[in-house]
Amino acid sequence: MTGTPATPRRRGAARTEELLRVTLDLAAEVGHAGLSIEAVARRAGVGKHTIYRRWPSLAALLLDALSLVWTSDLDYRYTGDVRADLREQFLRSSFALANPPLGPVYRAVIAEAQADSTLRATLDERFLVTVEQSTLDRITHAQRTGELAAEANLEFAAEVLCGTLYYRGLLTTRPIDENAVDGLLDMFMAAYESNEKTN
Amino acid sequence: MTGTPATPRRRGAARTEELLRVTLDLAAEVGHAGLSIEAVARRAGVGKHTIYRRWPSLAALLLDALSLVWTSDLDYRYTGDVRADLREQFLRSSFALANPPLGPVYRAVIAEAQADSTLRATLDERFLVTVEQSTLDRITHAQRTGELAAEANLEFAAEVLCGTLYYRGLLTTRPIDENAVDGLLDMFMAAYESNEKTN
Repeated sequence: MTGTPATPRRRGAARTEELLRVTLDLAAEVGHAGLSIEAVARRAGVGKHTIYRRWPSLAALLLDALSLVWTSDLDYRYTGDVRADLREQFLRSSFALANPPLGPVYRAVIAEAQADSTLRATLDERFLVTVEQSTLDRITHAQRTGELAAEANLEFAAEVLCGTLYYRGLLTTRPIDENAVDGLLDMFMAAYESNEKTN
Repeated sequence: MTGTPATPRRRGAARTEELLRVTLDLAAEVGHAGLSIEAVARRAGVGKHTIYRRWPSLAALLLDALSLVWTSDLDYRYTGDVRADLREQFLRSSFALANPPLGPVYRAVIAEAQADSTLRATLDERFLVTVEQSTLDRITHAQRTGELAAEANLEFAAEVLCGTLYYRGLLTTRPIDENAVDGLLDMFMAAYESNEKTN
């Protein structure tokens, strides 16, 4: 989505990435309330026009900045113990979401998206669906190996797992700690753990 | 929290409620992006000072407006069929959340809360915890009557139920329809339905 162009345009691409880095630094320092196209331009030492040439709005800039830090660090492990692998990823990604640079940029996108349904659709497609799909892949794998019940419909389970954590992390002021993650996984395993294993 | 004062202050209370109604009307018409103290004052035909005398910020005004429409219409039924009662309330409250006046005001509060952790704490205490508690009350009742497993820890289940619906309704662009509610309830019942009933 923000793929690096080939050599002829390398300088432009480097400038684009630099502006995204400035956005992330600024978000980490001032939080989302202080983020604006003007503030990014000032910090980068460029005119507003330089920003607007690349991104039509603050929201578009924030989404690309989010892509830059949304690294494969957030992938699931596949150790053969689905509960342990989900637990490990939930705690790791929740920490990333609660801290700079990902945290404040994500909050800013969520806030902007409340007034802008097009942005919310983009957020959904580019990030939320992606996270849910990688969760669905991990639990479907566990179903294939017999850890989870063969007859379970896991499609919605992935949304429940991700949605509950987003809710706690973004809407409430409660931390996503081991206690919360274990409570969520207790429910998930009680619903879908294979009977062959528990009997 | 927004209780009506006794007679001596009735005129002030009436004015307060009128300003909250104006806020709700405006939110329904222009959505959250157009909401401001200035816009509310202009619509109400009063000075900004009249608003600020009652509420220190737009967020505080929005929270009180939210209280006004957060009626007991959103209570759970207690028919003796926990799945049916949860399903009915989820669809009813999701419809309310997706439409004026509750929808746009709620979106505005969520957006403001992303940049303001004090507001997020108030939102959590006044609304999210309240909704979760009434959900917990309903499912704890079902546990007492034997519909749900006696040994289940339902504390976190209420958060999962509410959180998943908030996630879908506020962060994604997917509708909270019968399909989504049934998927969520399939997982909930698979995890906690009493064995005495299913065996």
